[in-house]
Amino acid sequence: MSDTLRVAGGAVLHPDFTVSDGDVLVDRDAGEIIAVGDTPAGDETVDAAGCLVMPGLVNAHCHVAMTLLRGYADDKQLDAWLQEDIWPAEAELADGDIRAGARLGLVEMIRAGTTAFADMYFEVPEVVDAITESGLRARVGHGVVTVGKDDADAVADNEEALSVAREFNDAADGRITSAYMPHSLTTVGEEYLREFVAAAREADVPVHFHANETEQEVEPIVDEHGSRPLEYAADVGLLAEDDFLAHGVHTTAGEIELLAESGASVVHCPASNMKLASGMAPVQAMREAGVTVALGTDGAASNNDLDVFDELRDAAMLGKLQTGAADAVPARAAVEMATAGGAAALGFDSGRIEVGANADLAVVDFDVPHLTPVHDHVSHLAYAATGQDVRHTICDGEVLMRDREVLPFDEAAVREQAAQRASELAARAGE
Amino acid sequence: MSDTLRVAGGAVLHPDFTVSDGDVLVDRDAGEIIAVGDTPAGDETVDAAGCLVMPGLVNAHCHVAMTLLRGYADDKQLDAWLQEDIWPAEAELADGDIRAGARLGLVEMIRAGTTAFADMYFEVPEVVDAITESGLRARVGHGVVTVGKDDADAVADNEEALSVAREFNDAADGRITSAYMPHSLTTVGEEYLREFVAAAREADVPVHFHANETEQEVEPIVDEHGSRPLEYAADVGLLAEDDFLAHGVHTTAGEIELLAESGASVVHCPASNMKLASGMAPVQAMREAGVTVALGTDGAASNNDLDVFDELRDAAMLGKLQTGAADAVPARAAVEMATAGGAAALGFDSGRIEVGANADLAVVDFDVPHLTPVHDHVSHLAYAATGQDVRHTICDGEVLMRDREVLPFDEAAVREQAAQRASELAARAGE
Repeated sequence: MSDTLRVAGGAVLHPDFTVSDGDVLVDRDAGEIIAVGDTPAGDETVDAAGCLVMPGLVNAHCHVAMTLLRGYADDKQLDAWLQEDIWPAEAELADGDIRAGARLGLVEMIRAGTTAFADMYFEVPEVVDAITESGLRARVGHGVVTVGKDDADAVADNEEALSVAREFNDAADGRITSAYMPHSLTTVGEEYLREFVAAAREADVPVHFHANETEQEVEPIVDEHGSRPLEYAADVGLLAEDDFLAHGVHTTAGEIELLAESGASVVHCPASNMKLASGMAPVQAMREAGVTVALGTDGAASNNDLDVFDELRDAAMLGKLQTGAADAVPARAAVEMATAGGAAALGFDSGRIEVGANADLAVVDFDVPHLTPVHDHVSHLAYAATGQDVRHTICDGEVLMRDREVLPFDEAAVREQAAQRASELAARAGE
Repeated sequence: MSDTLRVAGGAVLHPDFTVSDGDVLVDRDAGEIIAVGDTPAGDETVDAAGCLVMPGLVNAHCHVAMTLLRGYADDKQLDAWLQEDIWPAEAELADGDIRAGARLGLVEMIRAGTTAFADMYFEVPEVVDAITESGLRARVGHGVVTVGKDDADAVADNEEALSVAREFNDAADGRITSAYMPHSLTTVGEEYLREFVAAAREADVPVHFHANETEQEVEPIVDEHGSRPLEYAADVGLLAEDDFLAHGVHTTAGEIELLAESGASVVHCPASNMKLASGMAPVQAMREAGVTVALGTDGAASNNDLDVFDELRDAAMLGKLQTGAADAVPARAAVEMATAGGAAALGFDSGRIEVGANADLAVVDFDVPHLTPVHDHVSHLAYAATGQDVRHTICDGEVLMRDREVLPFDEAAVREQAAQRASELAARAGE
């Protein structure tokens, strides 16, 4: 007999975006959905009365430990912000800081119904330890930067990224996978990209990188290589089918075509792109071309939270603003990007409520004033709900939050430790 | 002895945006703040430990009863959305619907720390009754439309608006004031504007109207009058110092200058402007020119909630996107618009925590993961907090929500009645 969990008495969001009353039965050993609708009782029950059971949200681009720098510096352009605030502070990170920041971010994501994410940062084993504790699903990697480094240091940084990718490609009972993560097309030299992207293919891990985020980042590539950034990316071996890139704000029709042909995914980070004045990604055009688009919060220093419901709303809103058409990026498209799109980008069999899929679920309480009346559940997910409406979070068949209590961590202790470390970090960085 | 209330043990947001630990002492009879900082005990205490005490938020443009149509129709252009969905549904409103929708919206605003709002709708006495029950502060009016009406009907509609403005200009012990509210510069004929704006001046009430919301709305005015909409507005007698207009999306430098000279205020509705693909208002330029800018949710059908924290975040985000400069509309500017700016636009002595000001307060719980650590309280208000972080709401010295319990209403009954009426309304409108 398998150990089962029934999410009972709610409405269920189906992959075709219809909603019907029903239960979701989960095999906890396999971490899979085994029945949807009128299901038998489970060994354990999670009460979903008055709630919508939806796929857990996917945060497909994050730097989770950066919660320590939430609100540390705002209202500055990307370059100045990185060089004057973020990088100097990161240079002062002490032993244990990354783990403390990651734990805070993991608690925050569990609270907001996020069940899977991609993370690019340093000291990946620390991040992996925290993710393992958390019960979440993740694709992790070490962010490589070679500009300003001599060749030995540049190679060492790439070797670390590859080594981390090999080590964690199937960790935490398969919940954790990895990628080779060169920071961007301008911060990693061409020779390193060519060599280590090829090595990543050998190691059978995908590649995740930032691309086309700002206009300032596009120009030097065009000047140096005579081609658009994503053409250059394809030339150095990037844009394999399981690769996923963050941002894609300044992307031409030709680059969108290239993305669609390659099968590589784009992670749209609307809040970060607004806050850093980077611009609006052409998401509607990408979707029309058949590109897989996911959503990401980016780090908490440029957002400033890790609630994917904000990205879902922002994506729907900016879709309209970017095109001038109020029917662009409708609610269903936004919800799709936050769930199935994210799962596809990260290569997880999640993001949909269907027999055989991973049991990654968010149970959203609709019995609140701001989600009343319910003419359309999906509209509410896009335009009115927030992560604070999530009542239960389930990942890989395990309940990570029940009735708003986060189970894998002592939340108060995680908050206190992060606050203490953030305060010390700011003092060291000379705030 | 006056009856006092002490909001105790929190941090206080001061008018200059500094934050310090301290209490706020309120005279409940006068509805005023009488001490800030190290205050004597009050007859009653509200616990603000771990919280930031800030001025209550101001929602300076709303159609509160439209909560019944939340999520009723989305992802459509303004014209089609009004003509195919919203106006046909509004034509089916039954007796009591407006009161039920208003009560739902009032509960929602109390929950999100909003203490004052402006409302333009029909059946204003119904709305006024609900506001009186709620304890909130408001400036109300009847929305006039004359296009498509014969002269007798057009005059009657304007007469009703004036009569309502006269009747409710000092209701609910002064918490409710009014305005003459012609819907917009294109939906009310010039002859009526000239006549009834002058009558509003006689009656000593300000004027609130929609202006420059979409490009489609600007063109016919330019064609017909040979002037920009706000030049036309000034010509018909609008833009007095206490007038306030909603949107101002498509506004030229000359019109901004005209606004600054006139002293009239603009209510920026960023979410509604995005959702209906109307565009981005030049808020940074308006503020630099000295225009008073407030924030508004607009109705819940184009938002789709009444949480001013969303507008606060959207305003800061869009400020950057609209200018391409990440230092535009910084966190402090956004918070100022949501508090002091809103109070100035609506003519209330609220929006700041200072002795003598109205005791309109929101107490925001910062002891949560997504507001940890606290490098900067004001940054968190703009970029990470939501209305769901509000723990207590106080208006005019009265506690309207304590520990997340809304006191003036039976929240479950309000939700149930609104859901029932919304369902019947949708059925009548042939959804």
